[in-house]
Amino acid sequence: MTQLEQTVALLSRTPAALNALLRDLPEFWTLSNEGQGTWTAFDIVGHLIHAEHTDWIPRATMILRHGESQTFKPFNREGQNEKSQGKSLPQLLDEFAAVRGKSLTQLRAMNLQPSDLDRRGRHPNLGPVTLGQLLATWAAHDLTHLHQLSRLMAYQYCDAVGPWSVFLGVLQCHGHSSSA
Amino acid sequence: MTQLEQTVALLSRTPAALNALLRDLPEFWTLSNEGQGTWTAFDIVGHLIHAEHTDWIPRATMILRHGESQTFKPFNREGQNEKSQGKSLPQLLDEFAAVRGKSLTQLRAMNLQPSDLDRRGRHPNLGPVTLGQLLATWAAHDLTHLHQLSRLMAYQYCDAVGPWSVFLGVLQCHGHSSSA
Repeated sequence: MTQLEQTVALLSRTPAALNALLRDLPEFWTLSNEGQGTWTAFDIVGHLIHAEHTDWIPRATMILRHGESQTFKPFNREGQNEKSQGKSLPQLLDEFAAVRGKSLTQLRAMNLQPSDLDRRGRHPNLGPVTLGQLLATWAAHDLTHLHQLSRLMAYQYCDAVGPWSVFLGVLQCHGHSSSA
Repeated sequence: MTQLEQTVALLSRTPAALNALLRDLPEFWTLSNEGQGTWTAFDIVGHLIHAEHTDWIPRATMILRHGESQTFKPFNREGQNEKSQGKSLPQLLDEFAAVRGKSLTQLRAMNLQPSDLDRRGRHPNLGPVTLGQLLATWAAHDLTHLHQLSRLMAYQYCDAVGPWSVFLGVLQCHGHSSSA
Protein backbone atom coordinates (compact mmCIF):
# COMPACT_ATOMS: atom_id res chain seq x y z
CA MET A 1 0.00 0.00 0.00
CA THR A 2 1.36 3.42 -0.92
CA GLN A 3 1.55 6.37 1.43
CA LEU A 4 -1.04 8.13 -0.69
CA GLU A 5 -3.47 5.24 -0.19
CA GLN A 6 -2.83 5.31 3.58
CA THR A 7 -3.47 9.04 3.59
CA VAL A 8 -6.73 8.73 1.68
CA ALA A 9 -7.91 5.89 3.95
CA LEU A 10 -7.56 8.15 6.97
CA LEU A 11 -8.93 11.31 5.32
CA SER A 12 -12.03 9.46 4.18
CA ARG A 13 -12.86 8.33 7.74
CA THR A 14 -12.48 11.57 9.71
CA PRO A 15 -15.91 13.07 8.95
CA ALA A 16 -17.74 9.92 10.11
CA ALA A 17 -15.59 9.66 13.23
CA LEU A 18 -16.33 13.26 14.21
CA ASN A 19 -19.98 12.75 13.37
CA ALA A 20 -20.22 9.66 15.59
CA LEU A 21 -18.55 11.46 18.47
CA LEU A 22 -20.14 14.91 18.26
CA ARG A 23 -23.60 14.80 16.67
CA ASP A 24 -26.25 15.59 19.29
CA LEU A 25 -23.67 15.47 22.05
CA PRO A 26 -24.63 17.93 24.83
CA GLU A 27 -23.38 21.49 24.37
CA PHE A 28 -21.45 21.05 27.61
CA TRP A 29 -18.97 19.09 25.49
CA THR A 30 -19.30 20.81 22.12
CA LEU A 31 -19.40 24.50 23.06
CA SER A 32 -16.82 24.49 25.87
CA ASN A 33 -13.18 25.40 25.39
CA GLU A 34 -9.93 25.44 27.40
CA GLY A 35 -10.12 29.12 28.32
CA GLN A 36 -10.05 32.48 26.58
CA GLY A 37 -8.81 32.37 23.02
CA THR A 38 -9.00 28.58 22.74
CA TRP A 39 -11.28 26.52 20.55
CA THR A 40 -14.45 24.50 21.04
CA ALA A 41 -15.46 21.34 19.15
CA PHE A 42 -17.68 23.63 17.05
CA ASP A 43 -14.66 25.80 16.17
CA ILE A 44 -12.61 22.75 15.20
CA VAL A 45 -15.18 21.40 12.75
CA GLY A 46 -15.49 24.89 11.23
CA HIS A 47 -11.71 25.06 10.91
CA LEU A 48 -11.56 21.69 9.14
CA ILE A 49 -14.19 22.89 6.64
CA HIS A 50 -12.28 26.12 6.05
CA ALA A 51 -9.07 24.16 5.40
CA GLU A 52 -10.84 22.01 2.79
CA HIS A 53 -11.89 25.15 0.93
CA THR A 54 -8.64 27.09 1.09
CA ASP A 55 -5.72 24.82 1.93
CA TRP A 56 -5.26 21.24 0.76
CA ILE A 57 -6.64 20.88 -2.76
CA PRO A 58 -6.00 24.51 -3.74
CA ARG A 59 -2.33 24.12 -2.72
CA ALA A 60 -1.98 20.73 -4.42
CA THR A 61 -3.40 22.28 -7.59
CA MET A 62 -0.96 25.17 -7.34
CA ILE A 63 1.99 22.77 -7.02
CA LEU A 64 0.90 20.84 -10.12
CA ARG A 65 0.28 23.98 -12.16
CA HIS A 66 2.99 26.35 -11.01
CA GLY A 67 5.57 24.44 -8.96
CA GLU A 68 7.76 26.71 -6.87
CA SER A 69 7.11 29.75 -9.04
CA GLN A 70 4.04 30.75 -7.01
CA THR A 71 3.86 30.96 -3.22
CA PHE A 72 0.82 29.48 -1.42
CA LYS A 73 -1.61 31.99 0.00
CA PRO A 74 -1.19 32.09 3.80
CA PHE A 75 -3.78 29.93 5.55
CA ASN A 76 -6.03 31.86 7.92
CA ARG A 77 -6.30 29.66 11.02
CA GLU A 78 -9.22 31.70 12.32
CA GLY A 79 -11.01 31.80 8.97
CA GLN A 80 -13.87 29.68 10.23
CA ASN A 81 -15.18 32.25 12.70
CA GLU A 82 -17.22 34.22 10.20
CA LYS A 83 -18.30 31.28 8.08
CA SER A 84 -19.58 29.18 11.00
CA GLN A 85 -21.76 31.97 12.40
CA GLY A 86 -25.42 31.08 12.71
CA LYS A 87 -24.85 27.42 11.87
CA SER A 88 -25.47 24.44 14.12
CA LEU A 89 -22.90 21.76 14.82
CA PRO A 90 -24.94 19.13 12.90
CA GLN A 91 -24.91 21.49 9.90
CA LEU A 92 -21.13 21.83 10.15
CA LEU A 93 -20.70 18.06 10.44
CA ASP A 94 -22.78 17.59 7.28
CA GLU A 95 -20.83 20.33 5.52
CA PHE A 96 -17.49 18.82 6.51
CA ALA A 97 -18.52 15.38 5.18
CA ALA A 98 -19.60 16.98 1.90
CA VAL A 99 -16.50 19.13 1.32
CA ARG A 100 -14.14 16.32 2.35
CA GLY A 101 -15.89 14.01 -0.10
CA LYS A 102 -15.52 16.62 -2.82
CA SER A 103 -11.83 17.12 -2.00
CA LEU A 104 -11.15 13.39 -2.25
CA THR A 105 -12.93 13.26 -5.61
CA GLN A 106 -10.70 16.09 -6.83
CA LEU A 107 -7.63 14.30 -5.47
CA ARG A 108 -8.52 11.10 -7.34
CA ALA A 109 -9.08 13.11 -10.53
CA MET A 110 -5.47 14.34 -10.29
CA ASN A 111 -4.44 10.72 -10.93
CA LEU A 112 -1.17 11.31 -9.10
CA GLN A 113 1.80 9.13 -9.95
CA PRO A 114 4.57 8.35 -7.43
CA SER A 115 6.91 10.83 -9.12
CA ASP A 116 4.34 13.62 -8.71
CA LEU A 117 4.75 13.43 -4.94
CA ASP A 118 8.26 14.87 -5.26
CA ARG A 119 7.01 17.95 -7.10
CA ARG A 120 7.59 21.10 -5.14
CA GLY A 121 5.67 24.17 -4.18
CA ARG A 122 6.55 27.15 -2.04
CA HIS A 123 5.09 27.75 1.42
CA PRO A 124 5.03 31.38 2.61
CA ASN A 125 6.83 30.49 5.87
CA LEU A 126 8.40 27.08 5.33
CA GLY A 127 9.85 27.60 1.85
CA PRO A 128 10.07 24.63 -0.53
CA VAL A 129 7.73 21.72 0.29
CA THR A 130 6.72 18.66 -1.72
CA LEU A 131 3.28 17.54 -2.79
CA GLY A 132 3.84 14.34 -0.78
CA GLN A 133 4.52 16.39 2.37
CA LEU A 134 1.39 18.47 1.75
CA LEU A 135 -0.82 15.39 1.46
CA ALA A 136 0.72 13.74 4.56
CA THR A 137 0.15 16.99 6.45
CA TRP A 138 -3.52 16.93 5.44
CA ALA A 139 -3.92 13.61 7.28
CA ALA A 140 -1.77 14.62 10.25
CA HIS A 141 -3.80 17.85 10.50
CA ASP A 142 -6.97 15.77 11.01
CA LEU A 143 -5.16 13.94 13.80
CA THR A 144 -3.83 17.08 15.45
CA HIS A 145 -7.39 18.35 15.73
CA LEU A 146 -8.69 15.01 17.01
CA HIS A 147 -5.93 15.25 19.61
CA GLN A 148 -6.99 18.81 20.47
CA LEU A 149 -10.65 17.77 20.61
CA SER A 150 -10.07 14.91 23.05
CA ARG A 151 -7.93 17.19 25.20
CA LEU A 152 -10.40 20.08 25.37
CA MET A 153 -13.28 17.72 26.11
CA ALA A 154 -11.33 16.00 28.91
CA TYR A 155 -10.47 19.44 30.30
CA GLN A 156 -14.17 19.91 31.12
CA TYR A 157 -13.85 17.04 33.63
CA CYS A 158 -10.51 17.92 35.19
CA ASP A 159 -12.17 18.68 38.53
CA ALA A 160 -14.91 16.04 38.26
CA VAL A 161 -12.45 13.13 38.17
CA GLY A 162 -10.98 14.12 41.55
CA PRO A 163 -7.79 12.25 42.49
CA TRP A 164 -7.86 10.17 39.29
CA SER A 165 -6.46 13.15 37.36
CA VAL A 166 -2.93 11.90 38.04
CA PHE A 167 -3.61 8.75 35.99
CA LEU A 168 -5.15 10.54 32.99
CA GLY A 169 -2.47 11.55 30.52
CA VAL A 170 -4.78 13.84 28.60
CA LEU A 171 -5.16 16.08 31.66
CA GLN A 172 -1.39 16.56 31.75
CA CYS A 173 -1.46 17.80 28.14
CA HIS A 174 -1.69 21.56 27.94
CA GLY A 175 -1.57 22.00 24.18
CA HIS A 176 1.44 22.31 22.01
CA SER A 177 0.55 25.21 19.75
CA SER A 178 -1.94 28.04 19.72
CA SER A 179 -4.58 26.19 17.75
CA ALA A 180 -3.74 22.51 17.89
CA MET B 1 -28.56 18.34 32.28
CA THR B 2 -26.81 16.50 35.07
CA GLN B 3 -23.17 15.48 35.02
CA LEU B 4 -24.28 11.85 34.91
CA GLU B 5 -26.30 12.53 31.75
CA GLN B 6 -23.29 14.28 30.18
CA THR B 7 -21.11 11.32 31.08
CA VAL B 8 -23.53 8.80 29.59
CA ALA B 9 -23.88 10.88 26.40
CA LEU B 10 -20.14 10.66 25.84
CA LEU B 11 -19.73 7.02 26.90
CA SER B 12 -22.47 5.93 24.52
CA ARG B 13 -20.73 7.53 21.52
CA THR B 14 -17.15 6.28 21.92
CA PRO B 15 -17.63 2.82 20.34
CA ALA B 16 -19.17 4.29 17.17
CA ALA B 17 -16.48 6.97 16.95
CA LEU B 18 -13.68 4.40 17.19
CA ASN B 19 -15.50 2.16 14.74
CA ALA B 20 -15.83 4.97 12.19
CA LEU B 21 -12.16 5.85 12.52
CA LEU B 22 -10.56 2.41 12.74
CA ARG B 23 -12.65 -0.26 10.99
CA ASP B 24 -10.85 -1.48 7.87
CA LEU B 25 -8.24 1.24 8.22
CA PRO B 26 -4.87 -0.02 6.88
CA GLU B 27 -2.70 -1.87 9.41
CA PHE B 28 -0.09 0.85 8.90
CA TRP B 29 -2.31 2.95 11.18
CA THR B 30 -3.83 0.30 13.44
CA LEU B 31 -0.85 -1.96 14.22
CA SER B 32 1.86 0.71 14.59
CA ASN B 33 2.95 2.16 17.91
CA GLU B 34 5.25 4.90 19.22
CA GLY B 35 8.19 2.59 19.95
CA GLN B 36 8.99 -0.34 22.20
CA GLY B 37 6.58 -0.82 25.07
CA THR B 38 3.96 1.57 23.66
CA TRP B 39 0.49 0.76 22.40
CA THR B 40 -1.16 0.37 19.02
CA ALA B 41 -4.77 1.21 18.13
CA PHE B 42 -5.45 -2.53 18.49
CA ASP B 43 -4.04 -2.47 22.04
CA ILE B 44 -6.15 0.54 22.96
CA VAL B 45 -9.44 -1.05 21.90
CA GLY B 46 -8.49 -4.22 23.81
CA HIS B 47 -7.70 -2.10 26.87
CA LEU B 48 -11.07 -0.34 26.69
CA ILE B 49 -12.83 -3.74 26.57
CA HIS B 50 -10.79 -4.98 29.53
CA ALA B 51 -11.72 -1.90 31.55
CA GLU B 52 -15.43 -2.48 30.87
CA HIS B 53 -15.11 -6.00 32.29
CA THR B 54 -12.99 -5.25 35.34
CA ASP B 55 -13.08 -1.56 36.21
CA TRP B 56 -16.07 0.75 35.86
CA ILE B 57 -19.25 -1.17 36.63
CA PRO B 58 -17.55 -3.62 39.03
CA ARG B 59 -16.16 -0.70 41.03
CA ALA B 60 -19.46 1.21 40.98
CA THR B 61 -21.20 -1.91 42.24
CA MET B 62 -18.63 -2.29 45.02
CA ILE B 63 -19.17 1.31 46.14
CA LEU B 64 -22.94 0.81 46.31
CA ARG B 65 -22.65 -2.50 48.17
CA HIS B 66 -19.67 -2.03 50.42
CA GLY B 67 -18.71 1.66 50.50
CA GLU B 68 -15.21 2.23 51.83
CA SER B 69 -15.10 -1.07 53.67
CA GLN B 70 -13.69 -2.91 50.63
CA THR B 71 -10.78 -1.75 48.48
CA PHE B 72 -11.10 -1.94 44.66
CA LYS B 73 -9.06 -4.66 43.01
CA PRO B 74 -6.06 -3.04 41.28
CA PHE B 75 -6.75 -2.50 37.57
CA ASN B 76 -4.33 -4.34 35.28
CA ARG B 77 -3.46 -1.84 32.56
CA GLU B 78 -1.91 -4.57 30.43
CA GLY B 79 -4.78 -7.02 30.99
CA GLN B 80 -5.87 -6.87 27.35
CA ASN B 81 -2.74 -8.54 25.99
CA GLU B 82 -3.86 -12.09 26.59
CA LYS B 83 -7.54 -11.52 25.85
CA SER B 84 -6.98 -9.78 22.50
CA GLN B 85 -4.72 -12.52 21.14
CA GLY B 86 -5.93 -14.08 17.90
CA LYS B 87 -8.69 -11.51 17.43
CA SER B 88 -9.01 -9.02 14.61
CA LEU B 89 -9.55 -5.31 15.13
CA PRO B 90 -13.10 -5.49 13.69
CA GLN B 91 -13.85 -8.22 16.26
CA LEU B 92 -12.54 -6.01 19.06
CA LEU B 93 -14.57 -3.04 17.82
CA ASP B 94 -17.72 -5.18 17.85
CA GLU B 95 -16.86 -6.51 21.29
CA PHE B 96 -16.25 -3.02 22.66
CA ALA B 97 -19.62 -1.80 21.35
CA ALA B 98 -21.34 -4.79 22.96
CA VAL B 99 -19.68 -4.56 26.38
CA ARG B 100 -20.09 -0.78 26.52
CA GLY B 101 -23.77 -1.20 25.71
CA LYS B 102 -24.10 -3.77 28.48
CA SER B 103 -22.28 -1.52 30.96
CA LEU B 104 -24.62 1.39 30.21
CA THR B 105 -27.64 -0.88 30.70
CA GLN B 106 -26.22 -1.90 34.07
CA LEU B 107 -25.60 1.73 34.95
CA ARG B 108 -29.18 2.70 34.14
CA ALA B 109 -30.46 -0.23 36.22
CA MET B 110 -28.64 1.24 39.25
CA ASN B 111 -31.13 4.14 39.02
CA LEU B 112 -28.60 6.45 40.66
CA GLN B 113 -29.87 9.49 42.53
CA PRO B 114 -27.81 12.68 42.91
CA SER B 115 -26.95 11.79 46.51
CA ASP B 116 -25.53 8.43 45.40
CA LEU B 117 -22.75 10.24 43.55
CA ASP B 118 -21.25 11.32 46.88
CA ARG B 119 -20.99 7.73 48.13
CA ARG B 120 -17.44 6.64 48.65
CA GLY B 121 -15.28 3.68 47.82
CA ARG B 122 -11.62 2.99 48.40
CA HIS B 123 -9.03 2.95 45.63
CA PRO B 124 -5.90 0.87 46.28
CA ASN B 125 -3.59 3.82 45.50
CA LEU B 126 -5.74 6.92 45.68
CA GLY B 127 -7.65 6.17 48.88
CA PRO B 128 -11.23 7.47 49.24
CA VAL B 129 -12.98 8.34 45.98
CA THR B 130 -16.63 9.05 45.19
CA LEU B 131 -18.95 7.29 42.79
CA GLY B 132 -19.31 10.59 40.92
CA GLN B 133 -15.54 10.77 40.45
CA LEU B 134 -15.44 7.17 39.23
CA LEU B 135 -18.11 7.81 36.59
CA ALA B 136 -16.46 11.06 35.43
CA THR B 137 -13.16 9.16 35.15
CA TRP B 138 -14.84 6.56 32.98
CA ALA B 139 -15.63 9.28 30.40
CA ALA B 140 -12.26 11.03 30.74
CA HIS B 141 -10.57 7.64 30.29
CA ASP B 142 -12.24 7.28 26.87
CA LEU B 143 -10.87 10.72 25.99
CA THR B 144 -7.35 9.99 27.24
CA HIS B 145 -7.22 7.01 24.91
CA LEU B 146 -8.66 8.99 22.00
CA HIS B 147 -5.91 11.51 22.70
CA GLN B 148 -3.31 8.71 22.76
CA LEU B 149 -4.74 7.20 19.57
CA SER B 150 -4.56 10.44 17.59
CA ARG B 151 -1.01 11.00 18.84
CA LEU B 152 0.30 7.54 18.00
CA MET B 153 -1.31 7.65 14.55
CA ALA B 154 0.18 11.09 13.82
CA TYR B 155 3.56 9.77 14.97
CA GLN B 156 3.58 7.46 11.93
CA TYR B 157 3.74 10.57 9.71
CA CYS B 158 6.25 12.62 11.66
CA ASP B 159 8.81 12.32 8.85
CA ALA B 160 6.31 12.33 6.00
CA VAL B 161 5.03 15.84 6.79
CA GLY B 162 8.52 17.31 6.40
CA PRO B 163 8.83 20.94 7.54
CA TRP B 164 5.13 21.13 8.49
CA SER B 165 5.88 19.24 11.70
CA VAL B 166 6.47 22.53 13.50
CA PHE B 167 2.84 23.53 12.94
CA LEU B 168 1.33 20.23 14.13
CA GLY B 169 0.77 20.26 17.87
CA VAL B 170 0.18 16.53 18.07
CA LEU B 171 3.76 15.89 16.93
CA GLN B 172 5.04 17.94 19.88
CA CYS B 173 3.09 15.71 22.30
CA HIS B 174 5.21 12.90 23.65
CA GLY B 175 2.71 11.29 25.98
CA HIS B 176 2.03 12.13 29.56
CA SER B 177 1.92 8.75 31.25
CA SER B 178 3.03 5.22 30.50
CA SER B 179 -0.18 4.13 28.88
CA ALA B 180 -2.17 7.23 28.06
